[in-house]
Amino acid sequence: MKQRITLKEISKKLNVSISTVSKALSDSPEISDKTKEVIKAFAKEHNYKPNNIALSLKNQKTKNIGIIVPEIVHHFFSSIINGVERYATEKGYNVVVCLSDESFEKEVITAQMLANGSIDGFILSLAKETQEKQDFHHLNEVINQGMPIVMVDRVTDHVDSDKVIIDDTQGAFNAVNYLIEKGAKNIGLITMPDYLSVGRLRTQGYTAALENAGLPVNPDHILKLEALNGGQDEIKEFIEANNFDAVFGVTEYFAVTAMKVAQKLGMRIPEDFSVIGFTDGIISQCASPTLTTVSQHGEDIGRQAATMLINRLENEDKHIPYNTHILKTTLIHRESTK
Amino acid sequence: MKQRITLKEISKKLNVSISTVSKALSDSPEISDKTKEVIKAFAKEHNYKPNNIALSLKNQKTKNIGIIVPEIVHHFFSSIINGVERYATEKGYNVVVCLSDESFEKEVITAQMLANGSIDGFILSLAKETQEKQDFHHLNEVINQGMPIVMVDRVTDHVDSDKVIIDDTQGAFNAVNYLIEKGAKNIGLITMPDYLSVGRLRTQGYTAALENAGLPVNPDHILKLEALNGGQDEIKEFIEANNFDAVFGVTEYFAVTAMKVAQKLGMRIPEDFSVIGFTDGIISQCASPTLTTVSQHGEDIGRQAATMLINRLENEDKHIPYNTHILKTTLIHRESTK
Repeated sequence: MKQRITLKEISKKLNVSISTVSKALSDSPEISDKTKEVIKAFAKEHNYKPNNIALSLKNQKTKNIGIIVPEIVHHFFSSIINGVERYATEKGYNVVVCLSDESFEKEVITAQMLANGSIDGFILSLAKETQEKQDFHHLNEVINQGMPIVMVDRVTDHVDSDKVIIDDTQGAFNAVNYLIEKGAKNIGLITMPDYLSVGRLRTQGYTAALENAGLPVNPDHILKLEALNGGQDEIKEFIEANNFDAVFGVTEYFAVTAMKVAQKLGMRIPEDFSVIGFTDGIISQCASPTLTTVSQHGEDIGRQAATMLINRLENEDKHIPYNTHILKTTLIHRESTK
Repeated sequence: MKQRITLKEISKKLNVSISTVSKALSDSPEISDKTKEVIKAFAKEHNYKPNNIALSLKNQKTKNIGIIVPEIVHHFFSSIINGVERYATEKGYNVVVCLSDESFEKEVITAQMLANGSIDGFILSLAKETQEKQDFHHLNEVINQGMPIVMVDRVTDHVDSDKVIIDDTQGAFNAVNYLIEKGAKNIGLITMPDYLSVGRLRTQGYTAALENAGLPVNPDHILKLEALNGGQDEIKEFIEANNFDAVFGVTEYFAVTAMKVAQKLGMRIPEDFSVIGFTDGIISQCASPTLTTVSQHGEDIGRQAATMLINRLENEDKHIPYNTHILKTTLIHRESTK
């Protein structure tokens, strides 16, 4: 049987980006006519076909929905998947899960694969790289083709769709405010780069809580880490260099690492040093002492997203305006705070 | 647009099991002619179609592969998925992940959905309920239709396919043997029911290690838990009732729970009480003290399964005999043992 060429292979052979191939094949005005001609001719010659389904079947419902998440070995995203699964199953839908692995290229390929008929619509949380590039053409294309998308947690204003987010700023504000109420005066923040919406918003919440309490905001007290896992050495240096009485980490991993470092430096938790994390996952529950953390209710996010998607699929004839649903976070008190 | 009826809806309307509907529609000899006639007529009347794809497309390669896992909020399974993903991406394949949620019914529906053209083959770890029921018709059907399957970790002799398993018996033997070498004389086992292959095999490894050392095997020293999470009360009772100097838990959750119970009872770990778990996940690494555990190398399992599946897909013309690949486990020494 003749193998079909894939988007990735075309990109490699012609030495252009996946994004360019994808845009050219969908006739995007961003790509020059000459480039489009070359790419289209090459694709035709090599038997390129969008995956999965004859166009004639395109209007048939599959009762499958998709979800694309950046990673899977991560309690928050796997909880979202569980929430989607449970609601979809109740409603008689199957769910297929795909990973972007934080890669823009994989997100483009996966969105295209899903959009080509094997599912009716999908839920997506943006890859880190996509947020960095700010290139969302692949999602807008899917929506223009009539397939609904619901974005969750990592979203963008550049895509017009239903969205489910948590109140990151408020969640971070509440956490830092709680540390201040319990007497902390010198609070460090371990966060992510600003191009990640969750990093930016949680940093804003931290800053707002300090300002609200009349405490100074010192840029040296904010550590921005690129890698989501790792960074032990930076965290150690950060804590050694500052005389913190508390640290707020915007992931549970950052928070637990800070706690371990502080323990090794001989500080008692929570007497000398309090710690709050973000995401109420297994790490927070198993840490010793157990970690006070901002719970994002991942399963609720997933359930809400599936509800919005399936509602839209089952009411295609009605015009439903796009909606952004904001879920509140909860601060779970455990042993790492006073 | 007219909604198509699903397998599940047919099952509900006719008040027969999903399995019966699925068998009837694929003309299984297990189902009476009369029942088959009723189910087929009903399915036809209600516009039932296998999902996703016109039969004419069935022989086209999609360069997508699937993986069905019992659950996703679980380090071992998400590591397997990562291993599959990484190898598949290297080879230019997309991966779709589906959950059976430990349910036989969901496994049947999902296998059928995947087999109907959206992917070229899939990797599967059996649901708890499927192992209990010992009903594998849905997998044998998929294989008979010419779609390759690779089974991982939770496998069965009743399906003829490629398999990737770990040496559960040897892994358990090594763990218990290590406890004995370090002086333990009275070792408890917290395991799963025998119908789960991993429960049965790890129990065999435990028994073999005791016998090998000339220690008695006491059935009261073996606790079999149905629920994979939970069982705190049973574990507490089990440890209080016996004078163990060590416990081997066949999941990391069981092991960490045993450790917490022992700590609350005032025992020092590892001086008074040693613990070993199975699965080197985040729980083992974050526990305090950190947990000595049998690492299953989930990512290697996934990579091996993807290698076997893609190799078979790309050599369809060759006759490759089915192969069972057994991966060795490693005992990771941490603070919960001497």
